[in-house]
Amino acid sequence: MGISPLQRRRDLALGSGAELFYDRPLEIIRGEGVYLYDREGRRYVDMYNNVPVVGHANPAIVKAMSEQQATVNVHSRYLHDGIVTFAERLAALNHDRIESVVFSCSGTEAVEVAIQMARVVTGKRGIVCTDATYHGNTELVGSLSYLGSEPPESGDIRAFPFPERFRPLVDGVSEEKLCEAYLDRVAACIASLKAEGCGFATLIMCSIFANEGPPEIPSGFMAKVTDLVHREGGLVIADEVQSGYGRTGQMWGYEKTEFLPDIVVTGKPMGNGLPISATAASKEFVDAFRAEKDYFNTCAATPLQAAVGMAVLDEIERLDLIQHAASVGDRLTGELKSRVAGNEAIGDVRGYGLFLGVELVKDSNSKEPDAALTLAMSDRMKDKGFLVSYSGRFNNVLKIRPPLVFSDDNATDFLYAFDECVGEMCG
Amino acid sequence: MGISPLQRRRDLALGSGAELFYDRPLEIIRGEGVYLYDREGRRYVDMYNNVPVVGHANPAIVKAMSEQQATVNVHSRYLHDGIVTFAERLAALNHDRIESVVFSCSGTEAVEVAIQMARVVTGKRGIVCTDATYHGNTELVGSLSYLGSEPPESGDIRAFPFPERFRPLVDGVSEEKLCEAYLDRVAACIASLKAEGCGFATLIMCSIFANEGPPEIPSGFMAKVTDLVHREGGLVIADEVQSGYGRTGQMWGYEKTEFLPDIVVTGKPMGNGLPISATAASKEFVDAFRAEKDYFNTCAATPLQAAVGMAVLDEIERLDLIQHAASVGDRLTGELKSRVAGNEAIGDVRGYGLFLGVELVKDSNSKEPDAALTLAMSDRMKDKGFLVSYSGRFNNVLKIRPPLVFSDDNATDFLYAFDECVGEMCG
Repeated sequence: MGISPLQRRRDLALGSGAELFYDRPLEIIRGEGVYLYDREGRRYVDMYNNVPVVGHANPAIVKAMSEQQATVNVHSRYLHDGIVTFAERLAALNHDRIESVVFSCSGTEAVEVAIQMARVVTGKRGIVCTDATYHGNTELVGSLSYLGSEPPESGDIRAFPFPERFRPLVDGVSEEKLCEAYLDRVAACIASLKAEGCGFATLIMCSIFANEGPPEIPSGFMAKVTDLVHREGGLVIADEVQSGYGRTGQMWGYEKTEFLPDIVVTGKPMGNGLPISATAASKEFVDAFRAEKDYFNTCAATPLQAAVGMAVLDEIERLDLIQHAASVGDRLTGELKSRVAGNEAIGDVRGYGLFLGVELVKDSNSKEPDAALTLAMSDRMKDKGFLVSYSGRFNNVLKIRPPLVFSDDNATDFLYAFDECVGEMCG
Repeated sequence: MGISPLQRRRDLALGSGAELFYDRPLEIIRGEGVYLYDREGRRYVDMYNNVPVVGHANPAIVKAMSEQQATVNVHSRYLHDGIVTFAERLAALNHDRIESVVFSCSGTEAVEVAIQMARVVTGKRGIVCTDATYHGNTELVGSLSYLGSEPPESGDIRAFPFPERFRPLVDGVSEEKLCEAYLDRVAACIASLKAEGCGFATLIMCSIFANEGPPEIPSGFMAKVTDLVHREGGLVIADEVQSGYGRTGQMWGYEKTEFLPDIVVTGKPMGNGLPISATAASKEFVDAFRAEKDYFNTCAATPLQAAVGMAVLDEIERLDLIQHAASVGDRLTGELKSRVAGNEAIGDVRGYGLFLGVELVKDSNSKEPDAALTLAMSDRMKDKGFLVSYSGRFNNVLKIRPPLVFSDDNATDFLYAFDECVGEMCG
């Protein structure tokens, strides 16, 4: 099949490797709520995009954005009430030790700030992360991003196998023993960093290991690993870029998976499309970072970021989207789980609120990943009008992560199309 | 003097080290064109901010922003005509070898992409930069940022003294010999990187050395250093975050200082306040980068960035701001230069279009920098209603970098206040 004239122009203007979704890429020209529309007027239920968390083209966000841009939008070396109030609200939404905020533009930048902060506070350099994660794309943060590749054991970075119950590190043991096995691997990473001489600064993890699956985490792991990190003199960074902002049915993923991070990184959904990200921690940690790094980010901590960021929080409250994500997500997860037993290809269904993973396998005994089926099913679901994607260590997990305005009726429609799709492709 | 209640709240919400301009910080609540207004309704001529390049609260930008956000704003893994067209326009505005664009959110991110690209293309790691520069704040880019500190000679980075005529590297030689002296220092950096074994990937520099002064560059240096870099197998990155978008009276700083970079980094003014940045190069280089790095930036390369980015370019054309910057800037520079001879404190005046530096010294013979006077004068000018800041290796250069809508009448008013200020402070 030939590529379209627009795709040909894009190939020159953005370079050939700029990724496009789907076998026949979609040209999206309009959005509204949970729906996206292509040039032919075809409507799709968006079940992938977590940036437009309060809905595509949400009028309240448009209003806040245009009113602030029409009033003033300058950097943070002048005083401005909005940005202070926004930072106060973000801090107050977090647990008690989180008091102060450093704003930036992208999740990657916020992770950079978090790691630099942990290094300043601890005076050490070593970082521990999982072996199938993605945290961003700078030289530093990219070196922690192993999704789809092998983690190098470079000087000041160590990776541990992410905790999961579907393909457990140790077979046939109790959940408590399994948890201990993962904790042992984390402890080994920390010991190795200390032996190397760079010391141990931080463990960084997504609060639900979004890119890793998201897996079902052995009970108690998150709180126990936090204790371990603290005993070893390190800080825990929670990457809430995907798991935050109501996604899991709680405001933060760390509330769902029950631990208290020292540094919280937030990104994508904060601006419903406007670039905003944040790194939040105790005032003591933020002060130490600022004293050492003299951090400034021209287009961050602006009145525009503040106005839009607060409008997003207002909409989440007004539409009760956190409770909504919990109830719609729970039902959808339950419905999908009920399909596991009846179908060899559906290996596992896992979910936290409106972040779901459907793991596709060649057969349910071997659990051999079926990446080809996953890719094909994502394309087929697109043709049926539902936009999902795939993720996971083996690219065999259908990734379902809609705007939080995704409704119960949308879920019903999706399940109908999903069953159809499974019938056609896994017959 | 006590701090205000807002400043006290800010101290907790953003952390204590978050920089504020001026002895008594300004609370800015409104902007229009070249003017900013504080809570008391006092009007200031903004002579510092280069982000709102087409003017604060420009209605054309507000319109483009709100219309696009009300239509659709998604990431770049769907096709969208706007982002392709914007990339095409950016490439076409550059010299012939610049064909393709990687979008990101901040100048820092665009510099990260540029350095990673140079490393991928050359297969080497070594970087050369000046000894008083600032390119951004990630771990990698921050290690190239020495403004106000000593450059460490770390493994794969070398710094050379930035080229200037006011405090030349060698006294009493011809301009040609001075140029050669600087080139020798660059050559020594490259040789040292090669000897170290990391090889030489790139020389990165602001096209007008904005943070360094901006200095008057010995004639021919930029073209000659580009030749040198190419002979040594490296690539030249032009950081156009400050010097681009009409600032110098040309679209790009490299047109003004006459060289042809391999990679062009653009940032701050691109979105008039919306975070947008870009790294542009040949398709060959961009393809190589994308193949190796699989770069994706969720809130970059979006329909919103494209719509706002093109509206900014449209306004620059409609208001003829490039020619305007040249004519207003030339007159202002000339007027200020005419004050050097008559005043011991004004050591030097240098400028490129609407980027001017006024170097303040204790006396004109010794050229001893007067940072205290510079800081005090910046505060005094603020009280007179004109917002400038300071920069340079010794923090003794008044930095004048207004939105490009700064008018000839604004320049006249500024000169009156400046003369008053000099009379009061340097009597």
